[in-house]
Amino acid sequence: MKAEIITIGDELLIGQTIDTNSAWLGGELSTLGIELCRKTAIKDGKQEIIDALTESHARVDIVIITGGLGPTKDDITKKTLAEYFNCGMRRDEEVLAHLTQLFANRGREMLDSNTEQADLPELCHTLFNNYGTAPGMWFHAEGKVTISMPGVPNEMKGIFTEMCIPKLKETFPLPLIIHKTMVVLGIPESLLSRKLAFIEDALPAHIKLAYLPSYNVIRLRLTGYGEAKADLESEMHPYYTSVAEACGNHLLALKDTNPMNYLMEWFIKSGISIAAAESCTGGMISQSIVRNAGASAVYNGSINTYSNASKIQELGLSAELLEAHGAVSEECAQEMAAAVRGKFGTDIGISSTGIAGPSGATDTKKAGTIYLAISNGTDTMVKKFHLFGNRVQFMERSVNAMAFLIHLFLSKHYPFGPQKKVN
Amino acid sequence: MKAEIITIGDELLIGQTIDTNSAWLGGELSTLGIELCRKTAIKDGKQEIIDALTESHARVDIVIITGGLGPTKDDITKKTLAEYFNCGMRRDEEVLAHLTQLFANRGREMLDSNTEQADLPELCHTLFNNYGTAPGMWFHAEGKVTISMPGVPNEMKGIFTEMCIPKLKETFPLPLIIHKTMVVLGIPESLLSRKLAFIEDALPAHIKLAYLPSYNVIRLRLTGYGEAKADLESEMHPYYTSVAEACGNHLLALKDTNPMNYLMEWFIKSGISIAAAESCTGGMISQSIVRNAGASAVYNGSINTYSNASKIQELGLSAELLEAHGAVSEECAQEMAAAVRGKFGTDIGISSTGIAGPSGATDTKKAGTIYLAISNGTDTMVKKFHLFGNRVQFMERSVNAMAFLIHLFLSKHYPFGPQKKVN
Repeated sequence: MKAEIITIGDELLIGQTIDTNSAWLGGELSTLGIELCRKTAIKDGKQEIIDALTESHARVDIVIITGGLGPTKDDITKKTLAEYFNCGMRRDEEVLAHLTQLFANRGREMLDSNTEQADLPELCHTLFNNYGTAPGMWFHAEGKVTISMPGVPNEMKGIFTEMCIPKLKETFPLPLIIHKTMVVLGIPESLLSRKLAFIEDALPAHIKLAYLPSYNVIRLRLTGYGEAKADLESEMHPYYTSVAEACGNHLLALKDTNPMNYLMEWFIKSGISIAAAESCTGGMISQSIVRNAGASAVYNGSINTYSNASKIQELGLSAELLEAHGAVSEECAQEMAAAVRGKFGTDIGISSTGIAGPSGATDTKKAGTIYLAISNGTDTMVKKFHLFGNRVQFMERSVNAMAFLIHLFLSKHYPFGPQKKVN
Repeated sequence: MKAEIITIGDELLIGQTIDTNSAWLGGELSTLGIELCRKTAIKDGKQEIIDALTESHARVDIVIITGGLGPTKDDITKKTLAEYFNCGMRRDEEVLAHLTQLFANRGREMLDSNTEQADLPELCHTLFNNYGTAPGMWFHAEGKVTISMPGVPNEMKGIFTEMCIPKLKETFPLPLIIHKTMVVLGIPESLLSRKLAFIEDALPAHIKLAYLPSYNVIRLRLTGYGEAKADLESEMHPYYTSVAEACGNHLLALKDTNPMNYLMEWFIKSGISIAAAESCTGGMISQSIVRNAGASAVYNGSINTYSNASKIQELGLSAELLEAHGAVSEECAQEMAAAVRGKFGTDIGISSTGIAGPSGATDTKKAGTIYLAISNGTDTMVKKFHLFGNRVQFMERSVNAMAFLIHLFLSKHYPFGPQKKVN
C-alpha cells in the first residue's frame, strides 16, 4: 500500500517552521507497512490544495494532509476539501459540544471562528480531536482514503495514533512487517556498526537492520517482512538476541524508549530517590526527571550551581578543590553528586559540570567537555564526555550521556535494575 | 520569480531524518524575493527524480535539489541529471585536485567511488564544495535554472550562500518581498485575530498578515509584495505600526525571536541578574535561561523545590503558608520568587508552582493550573495561567507564560527594557 503526505502552510515554505510532523508520520507509516512515496509541502491556497490532491490521488491510495486547520485558517482547507469531494458542509454536534465544553473549562468566550470549527464537509468521517479544537477528517471515496489533520504536532499525533491507525488497518490489507527496536547508549555509530557487521552480513534479504542515531543515542531496528507472524518472529529472534548481546553494556532497553524516561520509570517503580546538581546543563537533566508523571514519589528537588560561588555556598564544595582542579573536573563532579544527595536526602545523587561553549574553553578543556558523576553514598562513578553541537544540542547530548552513566551505575549496583535480559 | 525544492532521500520518507535544509532554503529564497511554491520529498530513484523534475519545471523557473549526492549514492542522481539534460559526463579536474588534496590531508586512500565524485554532467556549471567531497551543480537551460546540492546541511548552506545567491541575482530580475515579523505573548490566537480584524480588513491585496502560533506564543508576520523597496516599506509601515499598537502589552518584540532568548539578551546586556525557583516546571525555566551564551554574567544558579519539604528547607517557606494556601497558590509563588532572589543574591527572582498533571489535580485546581511570580525585592507580580497539553507541552507553555510575566514586569519597572517602541 502506498501513501503520500501533503503539508499545507505558507510558514513551511518561507522557512518559519521546520516540518517535524511528516518525519513522524513517515516512521508510523513505515511501521504499518505502508510505503510513503512522496511528501509535498504547499501554500495555504485553494488551487494549490486541489492540484496537490489531484496529483497524489493519481499516484497512491492513501493521502494524508497536515496543516491548514485552526480557528484563523481552516476556512480554505475545509471548503476546498468539500469542493474537491463535491459535497456541502455540515455542523458536527459532537465537535460543537466538545468545543463549548473546552471554552467553558478555560473560562473563555467562544467566537464565531471557534464555533465554525465544528463545520465539516458532509462526506467526511470526523476524526475527533481530544487535544485541541480543530477536528480531523477522514474521506473514503473511490477506494482511496484521504486524511486531513491539524498541523499542531501533539494534536496530529493523537488523532493519527488513536483514530487513523485502527481505521487504516480495517480499510486496507496491510502486509506483515515486524519491527523490533532496542536502545543503545555510549557508543558511536561507526564503532557499533563494526561490532554488528558479522550479524548484518548473515541477515537474510527479508530481515534488515537499521541504525537510527540521535543525540548520542542509537536506536537499532530489526525489520522483518513476511507472511506468517509466528514464523517471522521466531526467524527474527536469534538475530535480535545476537544484536542485543553484541551491544554489551551499551544496551539500555529492548524496546523503543527515551533513555531518561525509561530509567525514571524504574526509579519510580523501585522507590529509589534521586536528586541532581547541575552546572553547565542548567536544568535540562532535572527536567528529564520531572517530565515523567509520578516523579514526585522519588524526587524532592535539584539545584543548578552555575557559578563557583553557588557551588561553594549551596553544595558546600571547598574553594580549595575548585582552585586546585577547576569547576570542570572529575573531582568537582564527584563532590557535587555526593553533596546534592545529602542536601535533598536521596538515595542517589547525580551531577554535571562542563563547558557548553562557545566561550569558557581553555587549552586543556575544549567546549563540549563535560564530567558527569553519580553517587549512592558508598560508591561514586564519574565519566568524562566530549559532546558536539551548539549549546542546546550539547545539553540534549548531556542528558543522554547522563542516562548512560546512570545505566552503568544501576547495572553494577542493582542486578534487577532496568536493563532486561533477552529471553 | 518562483521556485520549488526537491529533496532526495529514502531517509526523509521513513522518518529517519527531519528535513531542516528546506526550511533554511525557504527562508533564504524568501529574503531574495523568490517565492517558494512547493517542496517535494522523493526517494533515491531515477524515475522519481525525472518525474519530480519534469513536474517542477512545468510550474516554476528555479528548481533546487538537495540530497542524493555523496560517495555511496551520487551515482543515481548525477547520471539521472545527465540523462534529463541530455548530455554525457565529464571529469572536473579542479574537483579532482580538491578531492586528492582532501584525502592526502586526511591520510586516507582514495577509492574509485571517491574519484568518481569529480565526474559531473557535461552541461552543468560546477558549484565547488569547500566543505565536503560532493560538488554541487548548476544547470541553466531553456531559461530555467536547476541547482543540485548535497544534503549535508553545512555543505548545502555553504554552496548556496557563496555560489548560488550571487548567480541567482545575476540570472533573474528578482521581485521584491518584504517580511516584517513581531512576537506576541499571553493572548489566544482567536482573541488576537478579533483585535486585529479591522486592520486585516483594511490591508490591500499585496500585503498579507499571517498568524504563526506555537506554545502560547504567536508570531505575526506582515508580508508585502511590490516593486520598489522604499515605497513598499513606507506603504507597509502604518499597517505594521497599527498591528503592533493593537497588540498592546502583549507585544514582546518587533522581530522574530524566541521569547526567553530575547529577554535573556536584555538581561545579559543590562547586567540585571536573575534566579529561578521552580516546582512543577522542574528545570525547564532555568534551562531557558542557561541555553543563552553569556548567561553566566547574570545567572548564578536556580533551585527546583519539587516537594513541600524542599520548599521549606531550601527556600525557607513556612509550613503554615503551605498548609493555609497549598503549594499551588499565589502566596507560595510569591514567597518562592522573593526567597530565591535572596538565596542567590540576584536582582530578580522568578518562580513557578502548579500542577503539570496528569495526577495532582484537586476540585478547585485542575491539571494545567500554574502560578508564576516575579520579584525585585520591592515589587512582586504573580499571575495564574491555565495551560494545556501533556507534561512536556505544559512545561514548554510555562516557559513562554513566564516570558510574558517577565515582559510585563520589565515593562513596568524598566521603561527602557526590551519592548521597543514602533518608530
